[in-house]
Amino acid sequence: MMNSYRLHYAPDNASLVIRLVLEELGQPYECVLVDRKAKAQTSAEYRALNPNGLIPVLETPDGPVFETAAILLWLSERHSALAPPPSSPDRAAFLKWLLFASNTLHADLRMLFYPKKYIGPDADQQAQLQHVLRQRLHQHLTHLDQAAAARPSWFAAVHPSVLDYYLACQIRWMALYPAQADRSWFTLAHYPSLHRLCATLESRAAVAVACEAEGLGPTPFTQPSYANPSEGSAT
Amino acid sequence: MMNSYRLHYAPDNASLVIRLVLEELGQPYECVLVDRKAKAQTSAEYRALNPNGLIPVLETPDGPVFETAAILLWLSERHSALAPPPSSPDRAAFLKWLLFASNTLHADLRMLFYPKKYIGPDADQQAQLQHVLRQRLHQHLTHLDQAAAARPSWFAAVHPSVLDYYLACQIRWMALYPAQADRSWFTLAHYPSLHRLCATLESRAAVAVACEAEGLGPTPFTQPSYANPSEGSAT
Repeated sequence: MMNSYRLHYAPDNASLVIRLVLEELGQPYECVLVDRKAKAQTSAEYRALNPNGLIPVLETPDGPVFETAAILLWLSERHSALAPPPSSPDRAAFLKWLLFASNTLHADLRMLFYPKKYIGPDADQQAQLQHVLRQRLHQHLTHLDQAAAARPSWFAAVHPSVLDYYLACQIRWMALYPAQADRSWFTLAHYPSLHRLCATLESRAAVAVACEAEGLGPTPFTQPSYANPSEGSAT
Repeated sequence: MMNSYRLHYAPDNASLVIRLVLEELGQPYECVLVDRKAKAQTSAEYRALNPNGLIPVLETPDGPVFETAAILLWLSERHSALAPPPSSPDRAAFLKWLLFASNTLHADLRMLFYPKKYIGPDADQQAQLQHVLRQRLHQHLTHLDQAAAARPSWFAAVHPSVLDYYLACQIRWMALYPAQADRSWFTLAHYPSLHRLCATLESRAAVAVACEAEGLGPTPFTQPSYANPSEGSAT
């Protein structure tokens, strides 16, 4: 039987969010490792799927989808799960925080992890960019923590949402990357509602399966360790 | 009669996208000027609507919504217009380019316009950040132009989409801002499908109404001039 979905992934990359959500949805999918060491994501073949050369891409019956938040939204709509549906009075609040997680939190994280792409090769300039970004990220996390504290049904609640998985992965990455830079600024305990969100997700069967596949260990969000995947590498 | 919508705006800010879409939808709305000169967007009153202190906010019957792309998605869903609906096979492609416009194009534009927020006060460092961003933006526009050239029904087509309005405004801003920096890198004619998109929108009645309200002149996208609004200021 053909799987409906084909996930182009690298261990512990943004594709992890999509893997977790596919597992949570119980949808079968095929995985295709993108060899980052060989910069396979910039090949002509990969750019035919995503001209921007970024991971992940999810191939679907409706064509290839890229942008993590776009894939999350589309999957939640297609399977009527893990998010308030468009008809719900909760949809507005859900969308505003999902978009914030995508175009502010995740956008700032990308700069923290890959400063050269934004400021060029000068190490001092990279350090200055990262210094300001850490302050920004703390503000973003504070706002998200306050929103989660209100315990809406779609954010840090009993049943997970695509937003929960997206944030838990970003929180994991903030604790681990960049490996060679100062990470003491980030302490999950400073954001108690986000900490609770992470702890709740770690009891999900979907998380255990995804962590096994990508070598992430038993506490990938609250006490993360570097990935030790059976294929590919995280960096 | 109470309007359903209340748009917190500043002339020629991201709120312009929302105004254009509300006009295109034919939805009545009330406008509330945010006094940027007095930094009203950072007041406690405004932060109760958007803790991030950014423009726009749209107050709706389902509460305040922020993040431009979240408001666009929500309006398109609520009014079943200006985007492929969730059930459409075009939804996946629409979402991936809308999210790209939000978390890559718009995120990079914000840095180009407000480099101090990301790198601090050093002018040389700001210039270096802007130098790299201009190269990135050219790549982004090239990818968008190629996607628009395929003429899907939801992108640069006969009937506008929320994505069209979002991109037309970002194109306008690239031609005008930052006013004191080099803008010679940007030439709309280099992106023929995006140029056609902009020209098509300029014949819409919704655009004429919004331009009158914010003092944007007759060709706000293809040949933009600085805003001359009847109230407030663009910067």
